[in-house]
Amino acid sequence: MYIVHVFVHVKPEAIEAFKSASQENASHSLREPGVARFDLLQESEDPTRFVLLEVYRDKSAAASHKETAHYARWRDAVEPLMQEPRSRILYQNIQPADEGWG
Amino acid sequence: MYIVHVFVHVKPEAIEAFKSASQENASHSLREPGVARFDLLQESEDPTRFVLLEVYRDKSAAASHKETAHYARWRDAVEPLMQEPRSRILYQNIQPADEGWG
Repeated sequence: MYIVHVFVHVKPEAIEAFKSASQENASHSLREPGVARFDLLQESEDPTRFVLLEVYRDKSAAASHKETAHYARWRDAVEPLMQEPRSRILYQNIQPADEGWG
Repeated sequence: MYIVHVFVHVKPEAIEAFKSASQENASHSLREPGVARFDLLQESEDPTRFVLLEVYRDKSAAASHKETAHYARWRDAVEPLMQEPRSRILYQNIQPADEGWG
């Protein structure tokens, strides 16, 4: 699997707009064949901070995601909502193993 | 859901020992009724850094986890393997909603 965690810090007044745009993006992304999970979590102690947990079958699936219309819409919609540029960490899965992602 | 991400930085020589102890802990934890997921990921660009993605049904399930024998074994096993104290961030789920965690 090819796993990307994207850390987003939004403006306080943009929390709901960010959630809405990201849920729309997640629902479309989950229909991509190379996407195993596309979770969105909000920090309990700072609701302006979010993490997207993107689990792709492989690196090419991550590249394909960036070519979709829903990704482009999300990227443009959230750009003015952020307090600072988003950051990312790449991960490999130890648990579950590749066959455990459904 | 009550979601905890635990960030662990291990000594370079302790990577395999940490993975082994953590996979053992994950397999037991997944049998707890209040645990929905218990993933272990390793950073692609720094294999000494890991994140545990612990998804509990509620806060009391997280407390119950800390009372198990497998948690105590894991805590004691990984203590000497770490470069620095582990840190954690609490999250709430936006996507999937509560009913989407199986």
